[in-house]
Amino acid sequence: MSFMRRLFVVLVACCAASLASAWVSAQSAPRPADPRIRGFSEQASAAEASREREIKALPSAKAAEADFDVMTAEPHNTGSPYEIKLADYIADGFKQLGFDVTRYEYSVLLPWPKERRIDIIAPDALKLQVEEDTIPGDPWAAKPGILPAYNAYSPSGDVTGEIVYVNYGVPADYDTLKTLGIDVKGKIVLTRYGGSWRGIKPKVAAEHGAIACIIYSDPRDDGYFKGDVYPDGPYRGWGMIQRGSVMDMPHYPGDPSTPDRPSKPGVERLPMDKIETFAAIPVQPMSYRDGLEILKRLKGPVAPEAWRGALPVTYHVGPGPAKVHMTLQMDYGQRRLIDVVGRITGAEFPDEWVIVGSHRDAWVFGAADSVSGHVSMMSVARAMSQMMKSGWKPRRSILFVSWDGEEPGLLGSTEFVEDLANDLKAKTAVYINRDSGAGGPFFDSSAVHSLTPFVHELTQSIASDQPSKTLYDRWLERARERNPPKDGEPALAAPVVGALGSGSDYTAFLDHIGVASLDMGLSGTGDGAYHSTYDDPAWFKKFIDPDFKYSVLAAQVTGVAVLRFADAQVLPFDYESYGKQILEYVDEIEKEASAKSAVDARQVDFAGLKSAADAFARAGSDAMQQADRLLAGGAGTPALSAMNQRIMMTERDLIEPAGLPDRPWFRHTIYAPGLYTGYGVKTIPGVREAIDAGNFTRAAEQAKIVIRALQRATRTLSGAGS
Amino acid sequence: MSFMRRLFVVLVACCAASLASAWVSAQSAPRPADPRIRGFSEQASAAEASREREIKALPSAKAAEADFDVMTAEPHNTGSPYEIKLADYIADGFKQLGFDVTRYEYSVLLPWPKERRIDIIAPDALKLQVEEDTIPGDPWAAKPGILPAYNAYSPSGDVTGEIVYVNYGVPADYDTLKTLGIDVKGKIVLTRYGGSWRGIKPKVAAEHGAIACIIYSDPRDDGYFKGDVYPDGPYRGWGMIQRGSVMDMPHYPGDPSTPDRPSKPGVERLPMDKIETFAAIPVQPMSYRDGLEILKRLKGPVAPEAWRGALPVTYHVGPGPAKVHMTLQMDYGQRRLIDVVGRITGAEFPDEWVIVGSHRDAWVFGAADSVSGHVSMMSVARAMSQMMKSGWKPRRSILFVSWDGEEPGLLGSTEFVEDLANDLKAKTAVYINRDSGAGGPFFDSSAVHSLTPFVHELTQSIASDQPSKTLYDRWLERARERNPPKDGEPALAAPVVGALGSGSDYTAFLDHIGVASLDMGLSGTGDGAYHSTYDDPAWFKKFIDPDFKYSVLAAQVTGVAVLRFADAQVLPFDYESYGKQILEYVDEIEKEASAKSAVDARQVDFAGLKSAADAFARAGSDAMQQADRLLAGGAGTPALSAMNQRIMMTERDLIEPAGLPDRPWFRHTIYAPGLYTGYGVKTIPGVREAIDAGNFTRAAEQAKIVIRALQRATRTLSGAGS
Repeated sequence: MSFMRRLFVVLVACCAASLASAWVSAQSAPRPADPRIRGFSEQASAAEASREREIKALPSAKAAEADFDVMTAEPHNTGSPYEIKLADYIADGFKQLGFDVTRYEYSVLLPWPKERRIDIIAPDALKLQVEEDTIPGDPWAAKPGILPAYNAYSPSGDVTGEIVYVNYGVPADYDTLKTLGIDVKGKIVLTRYGGSWRGIKPKVAAEHGAIACIIYSDPRDDGYFKGDVYPDGPYRGWGMIQRGSVMDMPHYPGDPSTPDRPSKPGVERLPMDKIETFAAIPVQPMSYRDGLEILKRLKGPVAPEAWRGALPVTYHVGPGPAKVHMTLQMDYGQRRLIDVVGRITGAEFPDEWVIVGSHRDAWVFGAADSVSGHVSMMSVARAMSQMMKSGWKPRRSILFVSWDGEEPGLLGSTEFVEDLANDLKAKTAVYINRDSGAGGPFFDSSAVHSLTPFVHELTQSIASDQPSKTLYDRWLERARERNPPKDGEPALAAPVVGALGSGSDYTAFLDHIGVASLDMGLSGTGDGAYHSTYDDPAWFKKFIDPDFKYSVLAAQVTGVAVLRFADAQVLPFDYESYGKQILEYVDEIEKEASAKSAVDARQVDFAGLKSAADAFARAGSDAMQQADRLLAGGAGTPALSAMNQRIMMTERDLIEPAGLPDRPWFRHTIYAPGLYTGYGVKTIPGVREAIDAGNFTRAAEQAKIVIRALQRATRTLSGAGS
Repeated sequence: MSFMRRLFVVLVACCAASLASAWVSAQSAPRPADPRIRGFSEQASAAEASREREIKALPSAKAAEADFDVMTAEPHNTGSPYEIKLADYIADGFKQLGFDVTRYEYSVLLPWPKERRIDIIAPDALKLQVEEDTIPGDPWAAKPGILPAYNAYSPSGDVTGEIVYVNYGVPADYDTLKTLGIDVKGKIVLTRYGGSWRGIKPKVAAEHGAIACIIYSDPRDDGYFKGDVYPDGPYRGWGMIQRGSVMDMPHYPGDPSTPDRPSKPGVERLPMDKIETFAAIPVQPMSYRDGLEILKRLKGPVAPEAWRGALPVTYHVGPGPAKVHMTLQMDYGQRRLIDVVGRITGAEFPDEWVIVGSHRDAWVFGAADSVSGHVSMMSVARAMSQMMKSGWKPRRSILFVSWDGEEPGLLGSTEFVEDLANDLKAKTAVYINRDSGAGGPFFDSSAVHSLTPFVHELTQSIASDQPSKTLYDRWLERARERNPPKDGEPALAAPVVGALGSGSDYTAFLDHIGVASLDMGLSGTGDGAYHSTYDDPAWFKKFIDPDFKYSVLAAQVTGVAVLRFADAQVLPFDYESYGKQILEYVDEIEKEASAKSAVDARQVDFAGLKSAADAFARAGSDAMQQADRLLAGGAGTPALSAMNQRIMMTERDLIEPAGLPDRPWFRHTIYAPGLYTGYGVKTIPGVREAIDAGNFTRAAEQAKIVIRALQRATRTLSGAGS
């Protein structure tokens, strides 16, 4: 899934929940350049700086393009012949670099589309195009093996109904429909992409009684309104379709038939009718060429202004008179899924793992999503192999992972984490995610809040596309442009490192087993080919990164990040920052609760939450001071290892083994994707979502769970637990 | 000119200058129902209330429709045969009502269009349609005598140039162009309607070196984006064109050849080459059907998001490659202009005049603009004639005026005021303007700030289209909807009575000779036929006011307003409110000046301005107390007359005889249309516009002039001058 798209949604979700302001106040401007690099002693910092210069110089645009050309040569959706071939290509690549290679193979339940037909049957008859346009002049457009546009994990179905236009199809849109006196019961909803993760759209529609869901791309959101459309520009044209999963991922990701278990031979599999993460109603994506045909046949109230897109028509809500007959036949089968791991074993702390992962699978060619990210990960692998030849060895073990099955529902990373949970819990220091992410000069990141200072410092050490500015400077520029200060408020002091929601492969690491995670990418050139056939080499090399310079930049920032994690004497986590951020979230939730009902809010132990978060922040500050003393005192491996263990295991303690209410797979007490946002995060989700739903009794129980988790983490961090 | 359109622009201008907040704070919620009507003693109030019930009951939808049908039967632009016939029709009407009738005839310089041709000559060749579409099924569309779409007071011309898209074409848009590195020198600008009075567009374009200006209607602003287009709905369709004047009206309105003089036989007329209010470059309006053809041939930077309309194309700025050849031939001739006045002579104060005016001329049929307003004025005339038959006579004289030549440039009202200036200055208590204004349930008004409480109370005494709500309640509802409170701020306490800019016939009364003015209207149903052929009876009776109920409502509110002014024992002006509002404007300008340069701002005597405004407000408060004592004491005609003279003449003192810098025709020290906004007001214009331009020396001089004007007005109001 596209990094950019995901961030867009996170920002939207955050403004709504006014999290943005919380982050801003917690994320003050970083201190001026310090000769000491976080986690290194003064002496070690000098050596590290020199190695960073080396790793920044090594990535080559030419090598990146060669790798890119191989990976985008054919469609390579999960289970396709070329995706299986690419597993060999990557495994061979790792071997040539001198890494230990392991393949993790799973068999997953994954539908492919058979029949997809949508006919307008009233007020007149029209067979819609449904298939994606073949744009003349694009040499990739006519390749065999292109997966037709569909929404993975839609059921098959044959339904007929009047259309209601529901905007983005999020819960607030149904509140608006209610004020208009319009019901979707027994209707087919037409919704546009954007505003939430797409899987939320059929879910909410079904909850309101709709019998099917059509999702089209409005040109307002990523088409001609934004800029020139392909082949004249990078944006989505009239016949380009966004594919994508509509699995109920906030319930649990991965193979729907094996929640909490790896999809290996012999594992128990749920029968089809017991699976809870399929979309509840048939769902099909379409182009805006087709969407316009439906929209122009709607009457009823004119849509509210915020619902109107950029099509040349007056947007009406319906219902009808447009009536549609929709037939979907899905081929639900078991597909081969192959994750490939290349490992460098650490010299000093071999049992502390730094994992960096990127998904190899794509909906079609996946030039941006996610070959661009995968290529930059492989550039880092090559650079490190080179450095090892000149004698360098990382202190910690580094695992490069090529994920399969990300697009249909984070299958590869989820099955892997479910498979290796015990090892990963015991050993992983951090998971670094590289999804599509060489798409422009602007850096973006979400991470656990203990990594906010690390991410700021990281980007300050990387030169940007503009001579006198660091990547951090450019990131801050853009953040300020997008969040202009309100009356009387100061400008953003630092760019926001977001909270992690879902939509990419960190999900199982963070939310299921409590591994500290960091997601990052580059964007800014335009992303209108997202999940279409045209996210292909012709589009990418014309509009996104013709010279592979953003690929090199992405390799530099990823490389320095991996290097710092792998070689730091003390892991560079700042739990004081984490604790203070949690305090702000608690304040925010308390305000929301009091606004709902001051009396009921008293049931929830907000004072206890604050005191636990405060103690956690203080333990974080103490830990940093201890680490500084260890570094200054020249402590040896055993002392450093003990410290690092405490730092690693602290995040693990934020896991509640019983999981969140009604979705036990999600177990992190601080982060989860919102049940009704998907990509968008809900922080302290147990408490927040209970209060959203007006369930104060549950909120009170959940608060106790969070307090206990924070207390566990505080004990671990302060060394009292060991 | 359409009332609605004008208000839209005023609001936009105000938000920019943050005047909205100033008004809001000065306009607190009116007090609860008072048995005393402003300007009447308690006893007289009871009689007045009974007459108000009568005048509210008299207007008839049927009679209004009959009048409407006559007035919209043929195209009746100024100088056309049917407009001249309508003058007779109105004069006869007044006669039948028993009024004294006078016709004021002028000969004005007014261009009609001959050849208008626009061809795209690059990157390919296309002859644009230029003519307005004939929409099938509309019986008016094919009538003979329809004036082709043109912009009045454009010069003739034959030009060829590359196109630059300049958004609304206001000064800020050229600032944006500068940051994009784009110059319009030697180019033809393409601009969209909206964002300012249209005459500003060619003016600013010419100042930046453009050689011609094309103005199209973007569907974002009044077409399909807003709602269904004609004939399916009231909004502007693909082939409908907005006509309109592009005279430099903020310089001076009226016949361009006779500034400050009435266009009567023998008067001195400027030769064509000495006239300063013609557009400087050729200007032609077009439909969005034609506009799209040009836009889709533009390259260069993608337009900033705020510049993008609702056409199905990526908006580019250019320049080119679209290149256009434009030929305009205008027929500049002398046309007959006839204002018709019907007069009722006042019983007690015959030399205190209440004037109510509405324009009779239209661009084509003018169903909404302004026949709907004219019809409601005539309903008031009929109602008053009826009341006179049952023995009522107004205390003051009432003049009903049917203006000609409003559309091309306020010709009728301007020549009339220039003609009768001495009489009008001596006698006019108030001018009430009724432009197009029976277009929906929502009231809107701009007025001198001494009338803010009057307007609020007026609308509280009128029932709305909703049973339990007054017109005031509905107005407030809408105002709150459109100005939702910002974080932590309270909701709007009262609807805003705007400051008067320009764009309708109050301009000469207020700005040239200092007659207190009040503009009002009703809107809310949609105005996409504005200045097109389709502002015709078919459109109006289908979408705007099928039952003529808004016409009746408009007659009721106008009737009660005229009645209150005509029969009040003491004129209902509140100069305390005026003074306090001026204080807020001064604060606002001082802040702007200090923000520009704290040092230079000290040159301007803001303290003096504030003290003068404060003294004015205190004199207003004293005057109201004196009036209350007179009313309570049962004072007779001479005492009341003396008081009323002071009240009337106070507004006159706000005139500076020398006029505003560079535009001496505009002489009011508090109100003027902005030089670069047109419709939009600039309050305390001499000082504000000097500071806008960074000319602090001029601002200081202007401040002295304003102080002297306020001091004169204060003396007059307190009786010290007499």
